[in-house]
Amino acid sequence: MLALTLVASAAALTATPALAAERPEDAAAVAAQETYPTLFAEEMARAETFVDAMMAEGITVPVPRDPGGGYTHEQHKRNYRAMLLAGQLYELTGEQRYFAFVRDMLLEYAELYPTLGDHPARANQNVGRLFWQVLNDAMWMVHAVQAYETIRDDLTAAERQRIDDDVFRRAADFLSVESEATFNRIHNHATWATAGVGMTGYLLGDEELVQKALYGTAGDGEAGFLRQTELLFSPDGYYTEGPYYQRFALLPFMVFAGAIDRNQPDLEIFEYRDGILEKALLTTIQLTYDGYFFPFNDAIRDKSLNTAELYEGVAIGYAVTENPALLDIARFQGRTVISQAGLEMTRALDAGRAEPFPFRSLLFTDGPEGDQGAVAVLRDGTGPEHLAVVIKNASQGMGHGHFDKLSWQLYNRGEEIVRDYGAARFLNIEAKEGGRYLPENETWAKQTVAHNALVVNERSHFYGDRDLADLSAPTQLAFEAGEAFQYSAASIDDAYPQDGVAMTRVLALVEVEGLSQPVTLDVLRAEGQRNATFDLPLHYSGHIMRLGFDPARNVAERPVLGSGHGYEHIWVDGRATPDAAGSFMTWILDGRFYTYRFVPTQGMEVILGESGANDPNFNLRREPLAIQRVDGVQAATFVSLLESHGLYDGAAEQTVESDSQIAALRHHRQGAYDLVTIETLAGEEVAVAISWDADPNATHSATFEGREITWQGYAARVVLTGGE
Amino acid sequence: MLALTLVASAAALTATPALAAERPEDAAAVAAQETYPTLFAEEMARAETFVDAMMAEGITVPVPRDPGGGYTHEQHKRNYRAMLLAGQLYELTGEQRYFAFVRDMLLEYAELYPTLGDHPARANQNVGRLFWQVLNDAMWMVHAVQAYETIRDDLTAAERQRIDDDVFRRAADFLSVESEATFNRIHNHATWATAGVGMTGYLLGDEELVQKALYGTAGDGEAGFLRQTELLFSPDGYYTEGPYYQRFALLPFMVFAGAIDRNQPDLEIFEYRDGILEKALLTTIQLTYDGYFFPFNDAIRDKSLNTAELYEGVAIGYAVTENPALLDIARFQGRTVISQAGLEMTRALDAGRAEPFPFRSLLFTDGPEGDQGAVAVLRDGTGPEHLAVVIKNASQGMGHGHFDKLSWQLYNRGEEIVRDYGAARFLNIEAKEGGRYLPENETWAKQTVAHNALVVNERSHFYGDRDLADLSAPTQLAFEAGEAFQYSAASIDDAYPQDGVAMTRVLALVEVEGLSQPVTLDVLRAEGQRNATFDLPLHYSGHIMRLGFDPARNVAERPVLGSGHGYEHIWVDGRATPDAAGSFMTWILDGRFYTYRFVPTQGMEVILGESGANDPNFNLRREPLAIQRVDGVQAATFVSLLESHGLYDGAAEQTVESDSQIAALRHHRQGAYDLVTIETLAGEEVAVAISWDADPNATHSATFEGREITWQGYAARVVLTGGE
Repeated sequence: MLALTLVASAAALTATPALAAERPEDAAAVAAQETYPTLFAEEMARAETFVDAMMAEGITVPVPRDPGGGYTHEQHKRNYRAMLLAGQLYELTGEQRYFAFVRDMLLEYAELYPTLGDHPARANQNVGRLFWQVLNDAMWMVHAVQAYETIRDDLTAAERQRIDDDVFRRAADFLSVESEATFNRIHNHATWATAGVGMTGYLLGDEELVQKALYGTAGDGEAGFLRQTELLFSPDGYYTEGPYYQRFALLPFMVFAGAIDRNQPDLEIFEYRDGILEKALLTTIQLTYDGYFFPFNDAIRDKSLNTAELYEGVAIGYAVTENPALLDIARFQGRTVISQAGLEMTRALDAGRAEPFPFRSLLFTDGPEGDQGAVAVLRDGTGPEHLAVVIKNASQGMGHGHFDKLSWQLYNRGEEIVRDYGAARFLNIEAKEGGRYLPENETWAKQTVAHNALVVNERSHFYGDRDLADLSAPTQLAFEAGEAFQYSAASIDDAYPQDGVAMTRVLALVEVEGLSQPVTLDVLRAEGQRNATFDLPLHYSGHIMRLGFDPARNVAERPVLGSGHGYEHIWVDGRATPDAAGSFMTWILDGRFYTYRFVPTQGMEVILGESGANDPNFNLRREPLAIQRVDGVQAATFVSLLESHGLYDGAAEQTVESDSQIAALRHHRQGAYDLVTIETLAGEEVAVAISWDADPNATHSATFEGREITWQGYAARVVLTGGE
Repeated sequence: MLALTLVASAAALTATPALAAERPEDAAAVAAQETYPTLFAEEMARAETFVDAMMAEGITVPVPRDPGGGYTHEQHKRNYRAMLLAGQLYELTGEQRYFAFVRDMLLEYAELYPTLGDHPARANQNVGRLFWQVLNDAMWMVHAVQAYETIRDDLTAAERQRIDDDVFRRAADFLSVESEATFNRIHNHATWATAGVGMTGYLLGDEELVQKALYGTAGDGEAGFLRQTELLFSPDGYYTEGPYYQRFALLPFMVFAGAIDRNQPDLEIFEYRDGILEKALLTTIQLTYDGYFFPFNDAIRDKSLNTAELYEGVAIGYAVTENPALLDIARFQGRTVISQAGLEMTRALDAGRAEPFPFRSLLFTDGPEGDQGAVAVLRDGTGPEHLAVVIKNASQGMGHGHFDKLSWQLYNRGEEIVRDYGAARFLNIEAKEGGRYLPENETWAKQTVAHNALVVNERSHFYGDRDLADLSAPTQLAFEAGEAFQYSAASIDDAYPQDGVAMTRVLALVEVEGLSQPVTLDVLRAEGQRNATFDLPLHYSGHIMRLGFDPARNVAERPVLGSGHGYEHIWVDGRATPDAAGSFMTWILDGRFYTYRFVPTQGMEVILGESGANDPNFNLRREPLAIQRVDGVQAATFVSLLESHGLYDGAAEQTVESDSQIAALRHHRQGAYDLVTIETLAGEEVAVAISWDADPNATHSATFEGREITWQGYAARVVLTGGE
């Protein structure tokens, strides 16, 4: 941890400029030359359009009233965006009207702010002043203080005093003192709060505010921004709440770090903890597919690299690191910010310095020490059509975490094939509980059965108890990203402490000769103390084309699968007890076929269902799932395969390989080892051998069909046809 | 009808060249100059890639075995595509390998063809030889004969004789004599057959084949190609089966017409019937949204302007008419054909002669005389985001027609908002009934309740009897496309002959001051002889955000709505009896909100449901619908409004106007007139007055809220707020 050596005086802190860098250019000179890069100039034009429209409407600072999505909520959000952009335009152009707009609006806030108490639409204990929750007040401050910095020097002393005292000191006091509990958390809400308060400290030359922001209100460094950078990110830059929140947290981290870097360069904030902030930025980007964040935990699915946080993050990140791969992301975004960082970054982009961002198979450890599980990403190919498997072996991820240990997702051809529901929430839509998380977020979206994760006795991991979940994390046992075989192995033995069920899961991308893409192999072992029901759901996307089995269908009345832990939300379409040859189902999505194939154990039942039962307010999406169920056993091994094949082109009336190209999937237990063989219709056969031994150097061998197979480490791919 | 004056001798008919125009250029000269337009050159390269791959595989002409989508089916399709492209490449490049490929493949067919009887996968009486249905054999011939023409002169006499006799004469005989019933139909299958046979006649100099093709096997002109151009298109160029089939039929119409034009220019085929073939082409294009064909009747939804038929159609159409709007379509397609027509068209495109295709509000009459109803299209705005209402007041449209009189659809922002199911079919996917129409096409997709059309007593129009349906068509009463008010009015009084229910429907796009887009107003009057149940379904796309009413929900068990006529396929999610203030529902689709609002009559029930019940093989898509139900009345007037409003941007966390901007929708009956008023939250109010009087010159007046409203014609928009 960083030692508490902040000695800079208040005077030193206020050396001009405090927050933003110098004006990018002398305004008049720029206007004459028009030398801005296209992307920057477009962004300026966009900002001008928005700010001009806001000016035309007149300054409107309403008395707070509405929750998220409501009028006053949206107006205050628009105000802080407009102030920041107007301030930046003032720096770029020197135009008085921008100056006057920011000044007048802040003076309006100076009227309003002292009159405020708790927001009337408070939803919980974290109530804000301008907004229904303190988080939004912190976001307001992070933006407003940057706007204020652009005009503060040019104000009259009286105006400055007014705004300092009646807006920023009050707001800083509200965030840091009155909302101390939030402020001192190790949580993204606190990152916003400390950023707002800390930047206010720099601007007003208030060392105490800076100290609080950096080291917490107690000043002991057990809270505050620096502690957040230590505890909220793993050594790989993974943020424990998941990529959706990682994106959200990135803005205050990057913006405040930029301010620290300028005001206290001796803190070397961007080198801090082996460059954790750059790692956090790069990891945030790695945790995307086609630009969209992997939607696990309480994620809203619309979020992509095309969000304000990432425009800001990429610009600041590039300005600090000059990492040319960030320019590739900026190009993808087609957007930027109109700060000095944005200007530097777009100039480098124009100078042709971009290099492709290296999306690849990676393991991201979780936890401050990197020992709280991990997220594994396996990728095959590049570009928007590539195939990616995401495996969530991470820790619970705080209050927005889901009970989804060892779950996975699959992406292909730009689509999510094996799904994660994300959050049950319609952000800012007032008709849906004021835009807050819906009740079904608790009853469905967070539950284990809503994920591609093993459920024991129809109850969620940790029995849905978050406090219990916080105590444990999976163990990442192995991860390799080889040419023809990539895999992750992880286990958790205390997701069901009362039942004592340990589970270990290997997920692998396996190349099979003659198939157009690698198949995803899923081998999951569960071992408990007493007889139990094991359910392994698969949430897929697509329309069923062929079933290998013949289910008893509920065609005229649809019952519900169970009660509680999400089971009450599943309609049952049918049930079957498939044999080995018939244990598969094929669906189509966007012109590609997918076959899910599995090895049925004795008495295994397959349940076909759909989400949406017990949903009186139509809050849930209706999406299909299939469950492999084994009942009344102490242990079970699930061996499943997901194959993508063929093409359907309705326009050209061409269909190829609409049926699976795999002839058989077999599972052999040999002592401590498991062997899975995949045989294609064309007669190719590969095996995946699993030793379940985390020692990467141990050598293993087994005899299969009269032939000895030898491999090293946790798991390996062995080609059975050809050669020898 | 064209008089039977075909006098050209066989000798005249075979004046070189018969089918295709001359080689676009002297091959050597071209190779030297490389003057092809980019689009043409790209298409050549694409053709070369495909043909080279086919050559590399070796010529494969399998014995017919499989139905649609199966291996032999697909191989013979690939063969005819490859032959045609190879022949065209031979013409363009003079390369011998292309010549040899077409020759060798046709010699293989000469081996195979004489051995063939009925295809083993016959599905009905229209069995083919190479394919499971005669239609595919005709398609094979249309392509193969064009390929043959490119090489025939360069063959040895023996080869020519062999292919003439053992392929084309046999195939022509099969299509015209053995399959006479199909050949003489007035139907698109017959268009393909006559085109194949007629072009064979031109090529082989066989006047008898040409005569049969042009005038039917009896030679009396009651069948054959010319009669088809008279009976299959309305005077507006609308093809009675609908746009999906219109697209499909366009290729043989255009290609054969091109051949006729070159071989018998005196027939003036493109001037025939006031230029009906160009009208057909332009109408086909008008019947699209974002390039996709309106999917009514048995349509596969993947079909767009980006299909082979339209590449060919646009090229031939431009070559004949030089209509610059067709170049705009070619630009949209980004594809063309490598014929002389394609070359001319792409040269004109490169020369900058394109003009925007005039998509606009239009009425397309149906029936050979234009008196069998119509399809009305109302558009607001231009470009891929524009709003369009499609109203199907057309006749039954033969065997692929649906029982959907006076139904409608709505498109906005590139999405289908109010849906038409199209066909229940997975084209060429063997697992789905061999790619044929599914049983659910009859039981659901064709039924009235699967459309946005009025259902009486839970039975489909014409009681689902196609023969009965063929006897009737709606009457298009009025159509106007004004600035602030566009509407269509139509009626049908014999869709329920046993019940004697007459129905009249007005659908209008109405501008309302302060709303971002016009609203769609739907006023439907139904009048019967005895008490009945009237159901008005709306098939919408989106996720419910807000219900004005409080339905009794089936959350733990979902029953089926009814039995037969499609009702057995509807799951019931809930039922409500809304009051006037609460008669609305809001859903979201792709970031835009839509509110469906209606005026509840006494005791009206709203049923919320979803398709997919009684679907044992998962053949149906699961899509939501809402039904307005009025029970036990002789007559009912349904007044409904569809409003699009607001924006949801999850990435920017911006939501505006997520709730309806309309305060009230009211309905007033005044004598023979109906007045509907729409009042916005902002206080604007407009009325739509309906006289139900088809006389466009009649003037009407009514008193409303103490104020006299006067209008002319069937319907009008009257602004009630602001100045007089």
